[in-house]
Amino acid sequence: MTEKSTGQAVLIVGSVALDNVRTPFGEVREALGGAAVYSSIAASYFAPVRLVGVVGTDFPREHMQFLTSRNIDLAGMQIVSGLTFRWSGSYEFDLNQAHTLETQLNVFQHFCPDIPESYRDSNYVFLANIDPELQLRVLDQVQSPKLTVCDTMNFWIENKRDCLLEVLKRVDVAFMNDAEARQLCGTFSLVKAARQIRELGPPVVIVKKGEHGAVMVTDSAYFAAPSYPLEEVIDPTGAGDSFAGGFIGYIAATDDISEANLRKATIYGSTLASFNVQDFSLRRLASLTAGDIADRYCEFKQIAHFEALE
Amino acid sequence: MTEKSTGQAVLIVGSVALDNVRTPFGEVREALGGAAVYSSIAASYFAPVRLVGVVGTDFPREHMQFLTSRNIDLAGMQIVSGLTFRWSGSYEFDLNQAHTLETQLNVFQHFCPDIPESYRDSNYVFLANIDPELQLRVLDQVQSPKLTVCDTMNFWIENKRDCLLEVLKRVDVAFMNDAEARQLCGTFSLVKAARQIRELGPPVVIVKKGEHGAVMVTDSAYFAAPSYPLEEVIDPTGAGDSFAGGFIGYIAATDDISEANLRKATIYGSTLASFNVQDFSLRRLASLTAGDIADRYCEFKQIAHFEALE
Repeated sequence: MTEKSTGQAVLIVGSVALDNVRTPFGEVREALGGAAVYSSIAASYFAPVRLVGVVGTDFPREHMQFLTSRNIDLAGMQIVSGLTFRWSGSYEFDLNQAHTLETQLNVFQHFCPDIPESYRDSNYVFLANIDPELQLRVLDQVQSPKLTVCDTMNFWIENKRDCLLEVLKRVDVAFMNDAEARQLCGTFSLVKAARQIRELGPPVVIVKKGEHGAVMVTDSAYFAAPSYPLEEVIDPTGAGDSFAGGFIGYIAATDDISEANLRKATIYGSTLASFNVQDFSLRRLASLTAGDIADRYCEFKQIAHFEALE
Repeated sequence: MTEKSTGQAVLIVGSVALDNVRTPFGEVREALGGAAVYSSIAASYFAPVRLVGVVGTDFPREHMQFLTSRNIDLAGMQIVSGLTFRWSGSYEFDLNQAHTLETQLNVFQHFCPDIPESYRDSNYVFLANIDPELQLRVLDQVQSPKLTVCDTMNFWIENKRDCLLEVLKRVDVAFMNDAEARQLCGTFSLVKAARQIRELGPPVVIVKKGEHGAVMVTDSAYFAAPSYPLEEVIDPTGAGDSFAGGFIGYIAATDDISEANLRKATIYGSTLASFNVQDFSLRRLASLTAGDIADRYCEFKQIAHFEALE
């Protein structure tokens, strides 16, 4: 790896899981999943990825091989005696809302993200949804990243609020979905919530709204990204993670954190998320070409622009 | 009025009402309202308007004067012995959903839209939300409009479905909100619903999604218009009507039904709707300047565009 591409690698820390998922369109069992996996695969279309996570000794070898084949460095992947984290969930026809049926933390319960020495110079860092204490631990270990991005979930908002607020003080970009933003701020208005989250620290807030797209709020911009118009969402699992992965992967690849580039990154995030939900697990996300991604990005322009349309 | 501006006038047919509205931000009583009023005021910023509606003899003279002052031709306004249509509604913190407290149809119950001879050459026609039988009656009376636009509501979808389907076969543009589109098509997916509505007749379908903006679907385009990011919506009454009025008013003014212009019209519709919800009744909508409208239109460009941003 050249000096340049090393500098632009994305460090991703989060869960690696085996998922059972049921939606109105079918189901999968023991499928590769987890926030760090979805985001790493998405980011890998743009930049080399360094994944820090944990799996049990039962974790299928072919999954490791698959991740490696996608230019994902697994030097930071801990393999611990025991079973891999498992999540079982289902979705009704309103596919915006996951219903967790079962969570078996297994080896993930005692996960402690130790960032390998060789990863600590990472300029782009994505803290996928894990305990905010662990997110802080990662922030303590990286040297001077150009951009840090975090995600979270309702559980931490309820149970580790102070710790999460500490994370928000220290990151550059906070991702949240609409329900989480409302919950954190105690307000129905997402516009108000986005402002309030920015006031908690992160200069950039991205609120994901599922079928309604996403908004990115900075000190100078309010950018509304549409969602890609799919008649059917087959499996929304990992949509938010592939969004964040596409977002930070594109920024790392371009090494440009200007507002104009953050907008494009938001659309690339939406692009990756839109592919992800078109099939179960990583079936669609794993087999994209650069042309697929470029074509859909252009489609987003046709969807969103209303003047000077090319 | 010159020959040219006559040709570009917008004919609007619908309700004229006195509203009692309560939202978490306050209330108004006996305020000027009704779909035809909201849409006419919005359209009047772009083009001359010909309003066909009915009021009772109790309808305040100052409201008539106000409408006339906005370049709205009232030759088609019927004044009938009795009381004006009254609607009472309230909104909770989720301002997307109106709760009707009381409807007094009064003179509106026997409203029969007779289009004055001088209006029958109107090129641009908006059938605001009224009984689809009456909408058909209007379509029978106009000569050969360039663009007909309809709106509707859940009551007609439930109770006059066949008649509504007949309207949809005959109009060029159908407006519906998200709940109505889902109800009409029996599907949760708005993308699917928009396609299905197009298959019922109208070449252009616009689905309004409140705080999530609107989508316009044609045979060649899927255009997602964001909503304007307001921290507080004071009173959503008339939002959909001012949207439709701004939309058709802009098209009439430009006399251009190309897809590119329909997109711009959708943003002008969103612009007018966004002003409308910033205050009760017509307080904000009635006092806009051309500069207010142009500035907000430009803001929409900043909100939606992600490449070649000026």
